[in-house]
Amino acid sequence: MEHKTNDQSRRDFIKKSAVLGAGLVFFDPATLFANEKGKTMNGNIKTKGYAVFDTSGVFKPWEFERRPVGDNDVLIDIKYASICHSDIHQMKGHWGPQQYPQVPGHEIVGIVAAVGKNVTEFKVGDRAGVGCMVDGCTTCENEEQYQPDTLFTYGYPDKREPTGISQGGYSKSIVVRDHYVVHIPENLDFKVAAPLLCAGITTYSPLMKFDLKKGDKVGVAGIGGLGHMAIKLAVSKGAEVYAFTTSPDKVDDILKFGAKEAIVVDGLSKIAPYAGTLDYMISTIPYKHNIAAYIAAVKPFGVFTYVGMPDNFEIMMNNLALSASRVNFNASLIGGMKETQEVVDYCAANKIYPQIEMIEAKAITEAWKKVENKEARYRYVIDSATI
Amino acid sequence: MEHKTNDQSRRDFIKKSAVLGAGLVFFDPATLFANEKGKTMNGNIKTKGYAVFDTSGVFKPWEFERRPVGDNDVLIDIKYASICHSDIHQMKGHWGPQQYPQVPGHEIVGIVAAVGKNVTEFKVGDRAGVGCMVDGCTTCENEEQYQPDTLFTYGYPDKREPTGISQGGYSKSIVVRDHYVVHIPENLDFKVAAPLLCAGITTYSPLMKFDLKKGDKVGVAGIGGLGHMAIKLAVSKGAEVYAFTTSPDKVDDILKFGAKEAIVVDGLSKIAPYAGTLDYMISTIPYKHNIAAYIAAVKPFGVFTYVGMPDNFEIMMNNLALSASRVNFNASLIGGMKETQEVVDYCAANKIYPQIEMIEAKAITEAWKKVENKEARYRYVIDSATI
Repeated sequence: MEHKTNDQSRRDFIKKSAVLGAGLVFFDPATLFANEKGKTMNGNIKTKGYAVFDTSGVFKPWEFERRPVGDNDVLIDIKYASICHSDIHQMKGHWGPQQYPQVPGHEIVGIVAAVGKNVTEFKVGDRAGVGCMVDGCTTCENEEQYQPDTLFTYGYPDKREPTGISQGGYSKSIVVRDHYVVHIPENLDFKVAAPLLCAGITTYSPLMKFDLKKGDKVGVAGIGGLGHMAIKLAVSKGAEVYAFTTSPDKVDDILKFGAKEAIVVDGLSKIAPYAGTLDYMISTIPYKHNIAAYIAAVKPFGVFTYVGMPDNFEIMMNNLALSASRVNFNASLIGGMKETQEVVDYCAANKIYPQIEMIEAKAITEAWKKVENKEARYRYVIDSATI
Repeated sequence: MEHKTNDQSRRDFIKKSAVLGAGLVFFDPATLFANEKGKTMNGNIKTKGYAVFDTSGVFKPWEFERRPVGDNDVLIDIKYASICHSDIHQMKGHWGPQQYPQVPGHEIVGIVAAVGKNVTEFKVGDRAGVGCMVDGCTTCENEEQYQPDTLFTYGYPDKREPTGISQGGYSKSIVVRDHYVVHIPENLDFKVAAPLLCAGITTYSPLMKFDLKKGDKVGVAGIGGLGHMAIKLAVSKGAEVYAFTTSPDKVDDILKFGAKEAIVVDGLSKIAPYAGTLDYMISTIPYKHNIAAYIAAVKPFGVFTYVGMPDNFEIMMNNLALSASRVNFNASLIGGMKETQEVVDYCAANKIYPQIEMIEAKAITEAWKKVENKEARYRYVIDSATI
């Protein structure tokens, strides 16, 4: 799969920054001395966010700067950002050490506040969404997330950024390469749009790749932010959905979401009766568990997709059990930008909305604890006006 | 996938044995007092084999008895049996504790010496082969190996057997349910036929399931008994084969087998240039290794089949790497009986022969060490006349 990296402007900026650092010999006065409201002397964007300062998961308000709006960039005034379990994993170092302070958040919606001179797809005032990526390849048809130069939304090194890394959406504003911004339709409430940018696309993409047919039996394991969207999306495509949860008090919701059955897995024996019965299964479980028991629920030659990302991304499987299941196992990471726009449009058109709870920014620390304790129902959405 | 178990005769025998044990109240005199050459008073078959007595891998000659030839059984005078890496894994307890003494061996060829009264597909004097299974479902179309009541060729509990477990092919004779015996064509040398019963079918089955097309790029990882057959089979189907080995001195052989390239993996960086290039890959590597590096060699949405069975069957994968590869991962265990006959016939018709070295039974201990040291080229075949 060919792709071309259009990060010349990033390289140029890095080069220029180095030169600037060496003594301000060359500069673009328009950029360097711009001092409009909200901008610093060198064009950086002043903003505020809620950041973690170590692996504790404790948030504090933090003022920081973002890079200037480049020729291909979009500045977004963030209205809402929602909390993904991945935020917790990454910030607590479960996937590797992090630089702090860091602002997480990759389910972001807001209003376009400024655009670079080359931007044609967005204009000031547009409703915009940002997911897990903010820069990278701009010519990939639909698989940007797998390219080596993808810049993920927070915690990834970016020399253009004053903090040295990308900073996420628990914040008042964000600067994003235009290719990585999606349109939010007018008929889609901003609050429920936010979770589509990760939970929506992460479950939609593999469901679409499986080429789901009406009446297919689809299993969903782990009914949190992602899982509840997987149920709704699969049901909307005509699937008969079997939802596996460890939380008995989610059963009523699961049936309301349209699932045919809600199976409370208080022991692996609860999965056994479904052995070899499902056409397809998606697991969103974000921690180490006996994945073989779930895989065995899929029919021979069916497909099992694991989108949960446990500690260190490690999954342990039993090759003998996998052979006996005859299941094709794969994994999937979010989705490409084209598909992200598609899921947003699809959910708007079909009135598929995440179930959310609104919170103020000062409640993020507490909300994270609830996510870890499986108490979220099913996505916490931060009102950026409270930052 | 429906299947029906035809083990009524086994259950009957167990019941009868229990009654006999209780005081010889009921018995079939023809069975109980038969005392022909090679049979005991109760119809058991006296035989000899080479057994291990603990996890050491040290073989000693051993005289033992096999169950009588039941109505649906075939008695085979073994001519040759070959050594599979799985023999070593199982006997050394890598897949769980074993009962000793135990005679391994599941690549077996010989001449039919007796048949039960219901047997119609075989007659005395026929050329016969036995693989990894000796009893179980007789109505499954082609997937007997995945049924819960499959009796594997050695080390599996079987109350009909005087030793309490099935005993394998490093021996003079074996009693097998007819459904689990294949015909060895007249034009196929017995010596090269033996390895087809496991190494042949284990690689043939997944290659056929993949629906290999002429010109497909096929990777083979691990070039031992299974891997060298995978190369020959894939080449015979018109594939362009890329063989990955850790043994530089196998390169010449690999090219003679018909592979387009032999890649010596003295570091994982040697696999990197092949990232995303193969349509399909089969790995036969029977120990823990960095499987992600091999998976990455397959094209997005291609298939990777793992037939190697490492210690405890455990495979560790990185879910993020798997998602980035977009590869469908599956595992495969040998193949069904119909397909086993098919691979034997296919190899006979197309002159596809394993590369073998003949050994005497007293050399088995030494041969195992060579297999573990990757010195086998590529299958040791035991001449049963030397037992």
